[in-house]
Amino acid sequence: MAAGGKKPAWVVEKERGERREARETLWLFGLHAVRDALANPAREKLRLVVTKNALDKLEAAVAASGIAPEVVEPRNFNVPIDEGSVHQGAAVEVRPLNWGKFQDVCAAGEGLPLVVLLDRVTDPHNVGAVLRSAEVFGARAVIAPKHHSAPETGALAKTASGALERQPYLRVTNLSEAMADLKAMGFTLIGLEGEAEVTLAEAVARVGGRPIGLVLGAEGPGLREKTRDSCDVLARIPFAGNFGSLNVSNAAAVSLYAASQT
Amino acid sequence: MAAGGKKPAWVVEKERGERREARETLWLFGLHAVRDALANPAREKLRLVVTKNALDKLEAAVAASGIAPEVVEPRNFNVPIDEGSVHQGAAVEVRPLNWGKFQDVCAAGEGLPLVVLLDRVTDPHNVGAVLRSAEVFGARAVIAPKHHSAPETGALAKTASGALERQPYLRVTNLSEAMADLKAMGFTLIGLEGEAEVTLAEAVARVGGRPIGLVLGAEGPGLREKTRDSCDVLARIPFAGNFGSLNVSNAAAVSLYAASQT
Repeated sequence: MAAGGKKPAWVVEKERGERREARETLWLFGLHAVRDALANPAREKLRLVVTKNALDKLEAAVAASGIAPEVVEPRNFNVPIDEGSVHQGAAVEVRPLNWGKFQDVCAAGEGLPLVVLLDRVTDPHNVGAVLRSAEVFGARAVIAPKHHSAPETGALAKTASGALERQPYLRVTNLSEAMADLKAMGFTLIGLEGEAEVTLAEAVARVGGRPIGLVLGAEGPGLREKTRDSCDVLARIPFAGNFGSLNVSNAAAVSLYAASQT
Repeated sequence: MAAGGKKPAWVVEKERGERREARETLWLFGLHAVRDALANPAREKLRLVVTKNALDKLEAAVAASGIAPEVVEPRNFNVPIDEGSVHQGAAVEVRPLNWGKFQDVCAAGEGLPLVVLLDRVTDPHNVGAVLRSAEVFGARAVIAPKHHSAPETGALAKTASGALERQPYLRVTNLSEAMADLKAMGFTLIGLEGEAEVTLAEAVARVGGRPIGLVLGAEGPGLREKTRDSCDVLARIPFAGNFGSLNVSNAAAVSLYAASQT
C-alpha cells in the first residue's frame, strides 16, 4: 500500500476489472436456451422478455423459476441479441455462471477425469458445439483463456443446446499456468496436432486410464508454441484422405470419444 | 408411347423435371469456396463476380480457370447469396456437380470402402460439416435422399470448406433402395441410434474390415422406421453423461473415426 493509504494504480485497475466483470450481463435467447437457464438455480436471472406465444410454451419453467416475465408483442421484441439469430419470442438477461475454483472443478468434479483445453478458439458456434460434446462424453470442464476465446454469449448458448448451463466452461487468465496446474493434479495433457507421429489411440492407450486433458488449437494457427511445449504428448487423428482437416468441434468430439474408450 | 406419338403425362413430367434440374444453378461465395470451385475442372462455372480486392487474392485461380471475372465495386456486389452470409467479395454461379452413377462411386470410388447415409438431415451447415469430415476420413460418398435433405448451396459449400468440390454428395430418389443396393454390393449398414444395445466399436469390430455404410438420422426425429429396418445393425456411441446428445455432424465424425480404426 502506498503512503497515505492510496492504492497503487495496478490494484485500482484490478479492482475496476473485477467490478466490471461483476456487472457483466448477457442475453440468452431461443426457447431451448431460455428454458435451460430458467431451470438452472445457479444462473442469476435479471430480466425475462417473452411473447405471449413463447410464454405458453415456457409456462412451467417460468413458474418454477419465480421470475416475473415481461410479456411483449412480437413487434416490440427489442432485445439486444446477435444479428440474424432466431429468438423464438424468448430472451433472458443473465449473469455469467460462476463455476467456482478451477482446481475444485477439475480435481473433484463429476464425470470422467477428462478435461478439454481450447487454445484461442474464438468462434462461439465452435465453442458451443465443444461444450455440447464435452457434456455428452462426461468431461469435467472445458477450459479456455479469458482473452482471445469465445465469451459466454447467446449464440454460444444456442449451439451448446443447453450444455452451457451444465457443462463447466472455465476461462483462465493464463492457459500455460492452468496446464501446469493440471499436470500437478495428475492429468496427462495430449495436444492434438495433424503432424504428430503418435496417433490419438496410441496416446490414450499410453496414458492407461489416468486423467486426460485434451488440448486443441484454433483452425489455421493450431496450437501456439507455448501451449504445444506445455503438452505431455502430441497426437494426431489419423486421416485417410489427402485433403482437408476436421473442424475444431469435430476434432474435439473424436478426441473425447477416443479418450473415453479406455 | 400413347397413340399418335403423344407422350404419356408421367413421361412429360419426368422430362420436365430433368430439364429443370439441368437448368438449376447455385451461387458459391467466400474466398475459400470460390477458389476451390475455380480449381475444380468438373465444376461448370457460369459467372464469376468479384471485387478488385478479392480478385487480387484469387488471381492465380481465376487465370487458371479461364473464366472472365466481372469486377464490381463493393457497394455494387448484388449477388443472391444467403442472408447474413459473408461473401468476402467473391461469388461464382455454378451448376450442381454430377458425380456419375451411384454404384460406380460407391463400388469403385477412391478411399476406404466406407460411405455415410443421412436420413433427412436438412440443415446445410450440418451436411457441409459431414462432407468435410467424410473427406478427411476418406469416405467414398455421402448419400442423402433427393427430397427432405440439404441441397447443394453456398452455405453448405462454405461449411464444407472445400470438401463439396471433392467429396461425392449423392442425392438419391429413394434412400431405402440405395441401402438395398449397398447391401447387394457387400456393404454392412450400421445405423446410429442412442438406444441401441451394441456399441459403435463392437459393431465395427463385427464387420471385420468389410465395407461399411454409416446411417445417421436428423437430430430429434432420428432414423425413420423404414431406414432403421433397412440397417444390418443398430449401434450407439457410448455416452458418459446423463444429459444431452451429439450434434449430427459430431456424431458423423465420431462414427467415421470409429469405422476407420479397424
